[in-house]
Amino acid sequence: MEPKRIGRPPEVDAEGVARTAVRMFVERGFSNVTMDDIAHEVGLNRRTLFRYFRSKNELVWGGSAEAVTRLRRELADVPTGVDPFRAAQAAYVRSLVFPDEALEVTRQRLVLIASSDALSAFGAANQELVRRIIATFIADRGDRDVDSLEVAMRSAALVHGGHDALMWWARFGAGPPAALVEQALRIILAPPSVRPA
Amino acid sequence: MEPKRIGRPPEVDAEGVARTAVRMFVERGFSNVTMDDIAHEVGLNRRTLFRYFRSKNELVWGGSAEAVTRLRRELADVPTGVDPFRAAQAAYVRSLVFPDEALEVTRQRLVLIASSDALSAFGAANQELVRRIIATFIADRGDRDVDSLEVAMRSAALVHGGHDALMWWARFGAGPPAALVEQALRIILAPPSVRPA
Repeated sequence: MEPKRIGRPPEVDAEGVARTAVRMFVERGFSNVTMDDIAHEVGLNRRTLFRYFRSKNELVWGGSAEAVTRLRRELADVPTGVDPFRAAQAAYVRSLVFPDEALEVTRQRLVLIASSDALSAFGAANQELVRRIIATFIADRGDRDVDSLEVAMRSAALVHGGHDALMWWARFGAGPPAALVEQALRIILAPPSVRPA
Repeated sequence: MEPKRIGRPPEVDAEGVARTAVRMFVERGFSNVTMDDIAHEVGLNRRTLFRYFRSKNELVWGGSAEAVTRLRRELADVPTGVDPFRAAQAAYVRSLVFPDEALEVTRQRLVLIASSDALSAFGAANQELVRRIIATFIADRGDRDVDSLEVAMRSAALVHGGHDALMWWARFGAGPPAALVEQALRIILAPPSVRPA
């Protein structure tokens, strides 16, 4: 049995820490707030904060890891035999359903991201991960090459269109974002069924 | 009459300088080449190089300013009475027509951009400029709000889809990029005419 550690930190409410950090970034500007400032504000020591969030970027993009997990689960649940483009689009939209109490911090996160090149670059890597997950699903289910023009373009249009719709929602939207993203994607994307399989 | 300056530099072939810089970035890595290295390689002094290109980013993104100029001209030439979405899409594709001798350096530029967060961030600002030009054209010609969901989403889908198509072309495409971008946009974008004006 391991000896009990002295001074072990209490359970950390990671989502609460991220929410506080986002509020500080909005109030003071992303580049003007340090990890030390955040640790001080939430009453954690620096090392504990870094155990949960390796960077300020992760504090802002925190919600995206859960969205990726939801997307993987949604895609795994798609029955065989359905149109993979249509199924991927529906699964992607469902992965953007946030709890009501997270809406305001989600909006603040998106506004922050739009205002910072560093945050956008961090997010671009995340978008490429999501695009790759979707492209792989479509390629596997549709028996196509993951790097074919159609699979590459449709997966990119879905993810980049979704990001654009979230940004529009953050500026102008009311209510939850998923419904708005669905509406926006219907406006821009060619329906999958118009093309032969 | 002003006195003749001594040691006045000869006319500079800006496009040739950019081409050399892109080749150096590809060979040695973008972050490993300095403006001084480039000045030395092309036989210019540092100040002269900076007069033409304020940063390494500008050396890579050099072609984009001309594409923006072509886009503005194409849009100005669109006759009244045509569908503004369709006209914007056609004008955007025409703005991507490069001279044959620029194809290889265009491809290298795009590969570099994909490999560097700093270059991508620099390019995102350029894409937003292009998107804004297109959204303003559609809003003016279609009597709509430039920030409406439809205008914002369609202009973003066009520009981001075009960028994705150029990136696909840089990796896999043969021949000139404009035709590939046109084909890719036909795959992903809902035709404008399916929606009421």
